[in-house]
Amino acid sequence: MTNTESATRKRRSPRNARGQRKIPATPAYVTRVLPFYDPLDEEQLVRLEEQADWLIQEIGIAFKGDPVALDIWRKAGADVGPDDKVRLPRGMARKLCETIPREFEQVARNAARSVRIGGNNQVFAAVYGPPFVRDLDKGRRYGTIKDHEKLVKLTSMLPSIHHGGLVIVEPCDVPVSTRHLDMVYNHMVYSDKPHLGAITEMNRAEDSIDMARILHGADTFENNCVIMGNVNTNSPLLVDKVVTEAICTYNGNGQGIVVVPFILSGAMGPVSTAASIAQALAEAMIVGAFSQLVRPGSPFILGNFLSSMSLKSGAPTFGMPEPVVSNYVIGQLARRLGVPLRCGGSLTASKVADAQAMAESVDSMHSTMMAGAHFVLHAAGWLEGGLCTGYEKLLLDADRLGSYQKILEQGLDTSDEAMARDAYGEIEPGGHFLGSSHTMRNYETAFYEAPLSDSESCEQWEENGSKDAETRANERVKQMLNDYVEPTIDAGVKEELQAYVAKRKEELPEAWY
Amino acid sequence: MTNTESATRKRRSPRNARGQRKIPATPAYVTRVLPFYDPLDEEQLVRLEEQADWLIQEIGIAFKGDPVALDIWRKAGADVGPDDKVRLPRGMARKLCETIPREFEQVARNAARSVRIGGNNQVFAAVYGPPFVRDLDKGRRYGTIKDHEKLVKLTSMLPSIHHGGLVIVEPCDVPVSTRHLDMVYNHMVYSDKPHLGAITEMNRAEDSIDMARILHGADTFENNCVIMGNVNTNSPLLVDKVVTEAICTYNGNGQGIVVVPFILSGAMGPVSTAASIAQALAEAMIVGAFSQLVRPGSPFILGNFLSSMSLKSGAPTFGMPEPVVSNYVIGQLARRLGVPLRCGGSLTASKVADAQAMAESVDSMHSTMMAGAHFVLHAAGWLEGGLCTGYEKLLLDADRLGSYQKILEQGLDTSDEAMARDAYGEIEPGGHFLGSSHTMRNYETAFYEAPLSDSESCEQWEENGSKDAETRANERVKQMLNDYVEPTIDAGVKEELQAYVAKRKEELPEAWY
Repeated sequence: MTNTESATRKRRSPRNARGQRKIPATPAYVTRVLPFYDPLDEEQLVRLEEQADWLIQEIGIAFKGDPVALDIWRKAGADVGPDDKVRLPRGMARKLCETIPREFEQVARNAARSVRIGGNNQVFAAVYGPPFVRDLDKGRRYGTIKDHEKLVKLTSMLPSIHHGGLVIVEPCDVPVSTRHLDMVYNHMVYSDKPHLGAITEMNRAEDSIDMARILHGADTFENNCVIMGNVNTNSPLLVDKVVTEAICTYNGNGQGIVVVPFILSGAMGPVSTAASIAQALAEAMIVGAFSQLVRPGSPFILGNFLSSMSLKSGAPTFGMPEPVVSNYVIGQLARRLGVPLRCGGSLTASKVADAQAMAESVDSMHSTMMAGAHFVLHAAGWLEGGLCTGYEKLLLDADRLGSYQKILEQGLDTSDEAMARDAYGEIEPGGHFLGSSHTMRNYETAFYEAPLSDSESCEQWEENGSKDAETRANERVKQMLNDYVEPTIDAGVKEELQAYVAKRKEELPEAWY
Repeated sequence: MTNTESATRKRRSPRNARGQRKIPATPAYVTRVLPFYDPLDEEQLVRLEEQADWLIQEIGIAFKGDPVALDIWRKAGADVGPDDKVRLPRGMARKLCETIPREFEQVARNAARSVRIGGNNQVFAAVYGPPFVRDLDKGRRYGTIKDHEKLVKLTSMLPSIHHGGLVIVEPCDVPVSTRHLDMVYNHMVYSDKPHLGAITEMNRAEDSIDMARILHGADTFENNCVIMGNVNTNSPLLVDKVVTEAICTYNGNGQGIVVVPFILSGAMGPVSTAASIAQALAEAMIVGAFSQLVRPGSPFILGNFLSSMSLKSGAPTFGMPEPVVSNYVIGQLARRLGVPLRCGGSLTASKVADAQAMAESVDSMHSTMMAGAHFVLHAAGWLEGGLCTGYEKLLLDADRLGSYQKILEQGLDTSDEAMARDAYGEIEPGGHFLGSSHTMRNYETAFYEAPLSDSESCEQWEENGSKDAETRANERVKQMLNDYVEPTIDAGVKEELQAYVAKRKEELPEAWY
């Protein structure tokens, strides 16, 4: 298109009563119309499932440090060995998993931002867990509670991030023992999107639950999933009390849980993608079964996190072919099992938001998206193998998530209007469709606009300062934080949350590790 | 993994007789075992195909400027209007396309580098056409014949780039009228990979054919596809003589042709992905039919190039949801038609090899790869909407292509060895597989190593100078050019090529436009 043509198009651009272009609102989560991709044949699926069943039936998975959990298993008829290894008769784990809801809603305090997880729905959540934070202005440093607040605010404003997660960064300047209170409070007050609660100790999970009850009110809390915990198994084949206590606390209160075998192939699983997938399936499935013993019908998300390894250093690598394939495969396995899936994310080993970061993150996230992952933690903001949250990276990833949302929600429109037959009556061979009535009717919603993508000419880009994407993202972070408006919250509820946090901070000992 | 563990692994690393680690050789092209993805249902497929048929039957596609082409159509029974619009009876285009080989080999002068195109085979080729070149040292400038030579050398060394294309950059410092001779010579002498010939004028196509006959010898030339041309239609619905002459020259000599409708939705096609795909299918299919009239059974690749548009500027955008979906869809349509497909590439509007460049390129190329594209021009090196070739970008893209090759070639190995059951006899819950015999047997080939991905710790990365991926790629470009060794070529053949180029340069007028 020439510059003149584009100028013409700009002038013609229809505007609403306030002179602004109509921008379609982004839904609070993805409802997928694009069909799923099934990479494995029946024989391969059966081989993986039989391996998972074999691990559960013959090898056993140890449940350590939680006598309550072992009692639950014994009462259910499991074989609990003297080494705390739990072995289940053939088919028992799958049978118990049948009561896991295929899809469920996590209610947000702003109902318009509630999300559905499972089935044809997909939810993108922010990065979780990094102790460090990085931006172009101050480089890399330990995260603070102020960083956490700013990242919650940004997440609340980015339409393609549907869920806040919890530990967008570790606020290392506040005590470990009360950190969870500050983080949960930030999510509850500075955002009205759904989020997670703490899991590291049982009292922290209980505090999260208590605060959710305050935020949502007892009625809503009792009858809905309003908060979830996300917890890792100790792969290989070990489930510690952090997992079982989190399940007892979250599922026991009718809330949701995400359980994730975190496997670096070759370390926490065999140096084989297939075996690591089967092991992850076994670990998640037996914990899913446990969750249904605690409370049948409670929301459970089967997690999967698989990483490859650098031969040069032994360090984990991301966005590589092995985890990409594992995303596609675990998607198919989870659909077959009929439970909601967490996998993948915008993952990278890069230290900065450079070409490596986005190449790895996009291969990782494209496959995550296509695989039908229902809940995607680390969908935005992850750097450095999960050790660092990037401000600029958060926004760069969010741009891609918006693209994925359109891919999944629209697939290919083949309606009569999309076929545009009338347009061919208006043009000649070699002509153009710029002014055709079909174009005028449709161009405003035809294309996704990625806010951080620069598609100007090189000359215009140079005139604007030759800024790379990371620099543009940095500017946008500042603009967004400047524009941020705290979502309305009932003053009484806010005070009650503040009082709860203050009380618990008095009760809990100040601990820094 | 801890540092100690990784150090242990390093010491244990098996080495071959010369003390080097065994690296498996990369095949010369991809043979896919991963199943294809079919996004559309039968009803949608039929709607797109009927639209393409309607365009060919009712609207017509103009063949301009080449009376020979119109004669061929008339003799075949087509309806040729006074406006040179060709309309075919229902089913005729599809029927003619039936003689297009489903797959074929393009023979390289080094037989180990010959590629198969079509079926389960996929071939990645370098960027084609940019007038500008960019690297970190000298920024952006017009390409020269020396740049072209260096880019051909790099391409010849990168195992995941299977095919050289032709115009890796436009050598703007040599006359337009003889530029094709220099470029074809560079590919033939500095690389032993397959490549394309010129198409812009008939005599340039003929020169390319003549040089291919010299390089391969008359016998090999007569009995094989050793060179192809790549040519765009003038969308919408216009095929000019550049296309038909290229077909007559390449297919007429038993060589291959790639024909590509280049459609910016809203400009050269309706502002609808579905309509643009159907139009591209119609244009490519009628030209495919034409190629089979010229010489039944000649190698033809159905091209597709679809771009979205920025609402801000009207400029083309890349890696966005609309072209990503179109890659998936055209893959399914091409398989249904049973002809080899060219689509997609590592495309971006970014001016530099930054986060935007790789985000857009990877979404574009991941879908291209998954879609089963048989011949992927622009798979590496593309910047700035195709106006600029990036030295660093070429290598960054090649890293990703290596990953895609593994994804496609391996899918998921579910053999007994991959299931690693013996490893579970060697470890305890919470232990690790690092030293297990299964790991020792398999770790060297377990993971793809992306040469430019840095997975070191942040501290190590800072010690090494905090270099971003673009900087590391820049260093690697220099190292590779330093290490480059010209592939062996018969001295007589080389002289004959030089003599041909010299003779033609004397015969052709020096023209700069």
